[in-house]
Amino acid sequence: MRSFVECIPCFVRQAVDTAKLVSDDEKVQEKLVCAVLALMADLDMSQSPPALAQRIHQLIRKLTDNNDPYRQLKWRYNQLAINLCKEFSQAVRTSKDPLKTAVRLAIAGNIIDLGAKSSIEESEIENVIEDCLSVEFESGAIEEFRDAINNAQRILYLADNAGEIVFDRLLIEQMPVGKVTVAVKGAPIINDATMEDAKAADLGKIVKVIDNGSDAPGTILESCSDIFREYFDKADLIVAKGQGNYETLNDVDKNIFFILKVKCPIVARDLDCAIGEMIVKRKQTIS
Amino acid sequence: MRSFVECIPCFVRQAVDTAKLVSDDEKVQEKLVCAVLALMADLDMSQSPPALAQRIHQLIRKLTDNNDPYRQLKWRYNQLAINLCKEFSQAVRTSKDPLKTAVRLAIAGNIIDLGAKSSIEESEIENVIEDCLSVEFESGAIEEFRDAINNAQRILYLADNAGEIVFDRLLIEQMPVGKVTVAVKGAPIINDATMEDAKAADLGKIVKVIDNGSDAPGTILESCSDIFREYFDKADLIVAKGQGNYETLNDVDKNIFFILKVKCPIVARDLDCAIGEMIVKRKQTIS
Repeated sequence: MRSFVECIPCFVRQAVDTAKLVSDDEKVQEKLVCAVLALMADLDMSQSPPALAQRIHQLIRKLTDNNDPYRQLKWRYNQLAINLCKEFSQAVRTSKDPLKTAVRLAIAGNIIDLGAKSSIEESEIENVIEDCLSVEFESGAIEEFRDAINNAQRILYLADNAGEIVFDRLLIEQMPVGKVTVAVKGAPIINDATMEDAKAADLGKIVKVIDNGSDAPGTILESCSDIFREYFDKADLIVAKGQGNYETLNDVDKNIFFILKVKCPIVARDLDCAIGEMIVKRKQTIS
Repeated sequence: MRSFVECIPCFVRQAVDTAKLVSDDEKVQEKLVCAVLALMADLDMSQSPPALAQRIHQLIRKLTDNNDPYRQLKWRYNQLAINLCKEFSQAVRTSKDPLKTAVRLAIAGNIIDLGAKSSIEESEIENVIEDCLSVEFESGAIEEFRDAINNAQRILYLADNAGEIVFDRLLIEQMPVGKVTVAVKGAPIINDATMEDAKAADLGKIVKVIDNGSDAPGTILESCSDIFREYFDKADLIVAKGQGNYETLNDVDKNIFFILKVKCPIVARDLDCAIGEMIVKRKQTIS
C-alpha cells in the first residue's frame, strides 16, 4: 500500500514524539524535527507508510546516536500487558470459543501502539480490552481463520508491538504450537516488538522466535534477512498483526490473515471499514 | 508567544487540509505539502505560531494561484452561525446577565475553527454551544471585563474566524456600540474572518468595521496596516478573540482582554489551564 498525503502529519507527529523521548532540550528537539521535515520533503510517496517511517526513524537514530528511543516505554507496556494478561487470560480459559476470545484479546493488545497515537492512558487500556471481549467480527471470519490454522503446516506469526506481543501469546497458545514460528523486528523501530520483547512475553518457552532482520515498522520483504524470507516463503499461513504489517503485505501474494484494529482513515478506506473496527481478514478477500 | 516543536504537526495538518481544498489531484496535494515541509524545515521557531502559519499559507497561495481556499467553507459556517444565532440570541435577551451569556456564546462560536481542528460535525456544534451556556469563568473575570468595557472610551474588537464572527455580534451588541470598532483580517488566511464575513454577520449596521491589512491568522502588529495600528494604539481596550490573537498579542503591552476556547496543549500550558477551557482574561494578569 502506498503512502498518502494524509500520512504526512502522522509521520511528523511520530517524529515529534520521538524527538521528545530523545532529548529534553527544545533546541535539540526542533533541530531533529526540522531534519525530518527536510527529509520528508523529498520522500517518495509511492512507498508504503512503514517504508517512509523506516527512513525517518533511521535518520533520527543517526542524528541522535540513540538506537532505541522507545526502550523504556516498551518495557513499561510489556509490564502493563503482563499484569493485564494475568486477569484476561482467564477469559480465554473459560470461553466457549477460546480462539475467538484470544483473537479479540490479541487485537485488544494492539491498542498499545505509540506509532498510531501519541499516548494512551493506562486506565483507558483496561476498559478498552473489556469492550473488545464482546466485539463481533465479520460473519464467518473466525471460522475461516480456524480452518486456515487447522489446515496449515507452517504458520508464521508476525508480531507487531511491545506490550501487544504479550497478548499475542494468548492467541499463539490456541494454535498447534509445534507449527508456529513468531517473527519480531530485527532492530528497534518506534515501539515495535523486538527479540527483547518476545523474551519479556516469554514466547521462547512455547514457540520458536526469529527476528526479521529489518528495522521497518511493518514487513518489507526486501528489507528482511534471507533467513526470515525463507521462513516467510515456506510458511503456508502468515498471521500478520497490526496496521504496519497490513500496509506492507496487502499487495503480497501469499496466504495471509490480517488481524488488526483500524487506527487511521487511510487503512479504514483501504479496508472499507470504520476507524476503530477490529479486523480478521484473509488477504485474498481484501483486493 | 514563540512556536514549539508540538506546533509542527498542527501546521502540517493544516497544510494537508488546505491542499485538499485546493485540489482533488493527489499528486498536486503531495507536491504542495512537500513544498510546505521544505519551507518548514527552515522556519524560525522563535516566531509565533500565526507568524509561521502566515508564511506557510502565503506559500500555498503562491503555488496554487488560489487566493482563498477556505472561501466556500467560510460561507457555509457563516450561514450555519446565522441560523444558530437566531436560536441562541434569545438566551442573551432572557439572561439575568446578558454580558456573561454573550461572552459564553462568543466563545462558543470559537469552536468553528478549522485552523485548530480538521473538521467539526455540524450536529456537534449545537450541543457544544448549549454546553457553553452553563460554563463558569474564573472568579471575577466577567466583572473585570464589564468594568473594563464601562471604563473604556475606544474599544477595538479583534475578530477571529468566519462563522464565529456572527456570534461575536451578540457580544458586541452588549457593548456601548458607539465606542467599538471591529477589526477583521486584511486578506484571506485559513478560515479567519475578513471583510466579507463581517458583511455576512451584518456588523457594519451596528459598528465601524476595519481590516487590519494583514494575512496573518492572529494580530502581528508589524504585519498590519498603518491605519489599523492607529486604531490599535488609540484604543484603551482591546478585546482579542481566539488562540491566534492570544499567541500574537500576549507579549504586547496593552490593555487586552483575551476571550478564547483553549484548543491546544501549547496555549493550555501558557495559560496554565486545561484544553477545552473557556477563558476571559486580562493580559496583565497572565504573565
